[in-house]
Amino acid sequence: MRRPTTLDDLPIRADLRGLSPYGAPQLDVPVRLNTNENSYPVPEQVTEAIAKALAAELRDLNRYPDRDAEGLRADLAGYLGHGLTGAQVWAANGSNEIQQQLLQVFGGPGRTALGFVPTYSMHSLLSLGTGTRWVPVTRGPDFSLTVDEAVARVREHAPDVIFLCSPNNPTGTALDPAVIAAVVAEAPGMVIVDEAYGEFARAGTASALALLPGHPRLVVTRTMSKAFGFAGGRLGYLVADPAVVQAIGLVRLPYHLSSLTQAAARAVLAHREALLGTVEAIKAQRDRIVTELRAQGRTVADSDANFVLFSVDGDQRAAWQTLLDAGVLVRDVGLPGWLRVTAGTPAETDAFLTAMAELAPLKGESP
Amino acid sequence: MRRPTTLDDLPIRADLRGLSPYGAPQLDVPVRLNTNENSYPVPEQVTEAIAKALAAELRDLNRYPDRDAEGLRADLAGYLGHGLTGAQVWAANGSNEIQQQLLQVFGGPGRTALGFVPTYSMHSLLSLGTGTRWVPVTRGPDFSLTVDEAVARVREHAPDVIFLCSPNNPTGTALDPAVIAAVVAEAPGMVIVDEAYGEFARAGTASALALLPGHPRLVVTRTMSKAFGFAGGRLGYLVADPAVVQAIGLVRLPYHLSSLTQAAARAVLAHREALLGTVEAIKAQRDRIVTELRAQGRTVADSDANFVLFSVDGDQRAAWQTLLDAGVLVRDVGLPGWLRVTAGTPAETDAFLTAMAELAPLKGESP
Repeated sequence: MRRPTTLDDLPIRADLRGLSPYGAPQLDVPVRLNTNENSYPVPEQVTEAIAKALAAELRDLNRYPDRDAEGLRADLAGYLGHGLTGAQVWAANGSNEIQQQLLQVFGGPGRTALGFVPTYSMHSLLSLGTGTRWVPVTRGPDFSLTVDEAVARVREHAPDVIFLCSPNNPTGTALDPAVIAAVVAEAPGMVIVDEAYGEFARAGTASALALLPGHPRLVVTRTMSKAFGFAGGRLGYLVADPAVVQAIGLVRLPYHLSSLTQAAARAVLAHREALLGTVEAIKAQRDRIVTELRAQGRTVADSDANFVLFSVDGDQRAAWQTLLDAGVLVRDVGLPGWLRVTAGTPAETDAFLTAMAELAPLKGESP
Repeated sequence: MRRPTTLDDLPIRADLRGLSPYGAPQLDVPVRLNTNENSYPVPEQVTEAIAKALAAELRDLNRYPDRDAEGLRADLAGYLGHGLTGAQVWAANGSNEIQQQLLQVFGGPGRTALGFVPTYSMHSLLSLGTGTRWVPVTRGPDFSLTVDEAVARVREHAPDVIFLCSPNNPTGTALDPAVIAAVVAEAPGMVIVDEAYGEFARAGTASALALLPGHPRLVVTRTMSKAFGFAGGRLGYLVADPAVVQAIGLVRLPYHLSSLTQAAARAVLAHREALLGTVEAIKAQRDRIVTELRAQGRTVADSDANFVLFSVDGDQRAAWQTLLDAGVLVRDVGLPGWLRVTAGTPAETDAFLTAMAELAPLKGESP
C-alpha cells in the first residue's frame, strides 16, 4: 500500500516548512477563558432581530451580495461616531482578513512590518502569509512602550507597516495616545492600530480614531467579535482615510462578505445597547481579577481589555495544566512565566480565582 | 481646505499602481445575465430549512465557529461521492479565497502561476495579490487546448502552479480529461482545476475528481454559488489529498468561516435535490441559447457551463450597450468581438434572444 502523502512531499513555500497552524486548542471544558470571547450569549431580543434580518435574505441567496457592503459600512460609521462616514470604513470576515488585505496593499515582498512584541501573534503570521518581512521589537520587562523607545525603533527600522496593538494582546494594556501620535508622525509608511479590545478600555483611555483627521496613513482596525459578542459571525473592520478604503479595493476578493454576514451584523449594530451592556459587567470582572490576583501576591499587567495577563511565578505550562485539570481553560501565549485569562461572568471568575488559589504557593511565600 | 488624499498619495505596492478593482457593474436592470448567477430564487422549503439551521446558531454567536468546519467538510465530501472524506475537503468564503490560500502556500514571491487565457480573470488577480508571477499562455482562436499544446507549455515554463479551468470561464467549454491528466503528469508543481461550473457539464464530461487518487499535487476547486444558487452565502471548497488540506492550515485565517456560513451551507447541502433541480432547466436554456444564436448565424463556443460566449461580429462594447439599452445586462469580458451571457430562466432567454435579433445584422448578411 502507498505511504500517505505528507507536507514534506508537497512543494510548499520554504518559509512555511516546519510551521504549525495558528490556533488555541478547542477543548470541551466547563470554564473556557482562553480565546477572549464574550461569555454572555446573545440575548433573545437580539437573536430574534438577527433571525428576522437573515430570513429576509434567504430567497435571494442565488444572487451575489452587495460587493461593497455599503449599508453595513454606513452603520459601522454611525456606531463609531467621530463624524465618520461609510467611505472611511471597510469590513471583512474578521479583523484578520482586514489586516491581511492591508498587508497585501502596503506590505508584501520586499517590504517590512514592525510590531512591538509580545503582541497579537497573528500580526507576524499575516506578515509571513503575505511575504512581508516581520520585524519584532521586544518590549521591556513590564511590557510598556514609551514615546522615545517607539520613535527610536521606527527610525532605526523605517518599516513599511507598523502594527500598534491597543489595548495590547496578550498584555492587556492600552497605549498612551501620545505614543500613537509620535509613531504616526515618525512612520515612513502605514500605521495600523489594532483596537480589537477598544470597547473595554478603562475610563479616560482615548481611541486612535480621534487621531484620524489629517493622517491618511493611519488605520484603526476593530472587530465585532468581543464587545458585541459576535465572534461566530465574523465581522472585522477598519477606519481610515477614504483613499485607504479605495486601495483595499485593489486586493479584496470580490463578494468576500456574504449577504448573511452583512445582514446579521447590521441587525446586531441596530441592537447594540443590549449587547454592549455586557461590556461594563465584563470590565467589572476584569478589574476584580486584577485586584484579587494582586491580593494573592501575583504580578499582573494593567488591563484595558477583556482579559488579564498574570505571572504564575514559575513554569506556565505546568500552571496551565493545573488550571485545566481544575476545569478552567486559560491561554498559554508562549510567554515564560505568564498566562492569560479572559474575563467572563462572575461565576467564571469565581472558578478561575478558586483554581488560582490552589496553584503552588508563590516563591518566598511561607507554606 | 486640504486636497483629498488619493491612491497616489499612499505607499501602495508598485505592482498595484494604476489598477482598478475587479468586478462587473452592479446595475439595476430587468434581465441580469452578467455574473453567472443561478436565476432561480431559493425555494421556500429550503429557505425554511436554512432559517431553522441559522436560528440554532444565534444564541452562541458569542463563541468562535468551528475553526476546521469539520461537519461542513464531511457533508461536502458526501455530496461529491468518489469515496471522498472530509479530510480531503477544505472550505472557505468562496472559491476565490480557496485559490488565494493555495497561492499563498504553493505560489508567492519567486514563484509562478500559469493559466491558459482567456480564462477566469481572478486567477491572474489572485496571483498578483499573492506576489506570484502570472504566466499567461494564449489559447488558439477557437479557445481549445490540446494535450500536445498544454504539455509543451508546461515544459516550457515549468510553473509552480497551473490553473486549468473546466468548464472554462468565459469560453464555457470543458477540458478533455486527457488534457488534465497529461498536465498533471508533466507539471513540476501543483495543478488546480477550477470546476466552478462543473455541475452544468454536458453528459459524458468527466470531473477531474476522478483523477485525484494517486495524484497529491492535483487540486479541484468548486463552489456552491452556481449550481446550488448560493452566491450570496459565499461557499467555495477544494478537494485534494489530505496533505494539501493540512498545508492550507498554515496560511488560512483562524475562524475564517462563520458559524452562519457553515450552518447555512449544511442546510443547503441537506436539501440539494430541490436546488440541483434547477441545473437541468438551466442547461436546457444554455443549449437553447447556443442553438438559436447559431441559427442567427453567430459563432458560439461550445458550453458546458451556465453561460455562453458568442461572437457579435464587431465591437463588443457597442453590442453590450445596445443589449443594456434593451434591458438585458450581459458581460463584456474584454475579448474583442465576443460577449458572455448567463443562461437563466426561459423568460430571460426570450428577452436576450429578442434583443440579440435586433442587434445590427451580421457582416455579409443581406439587409
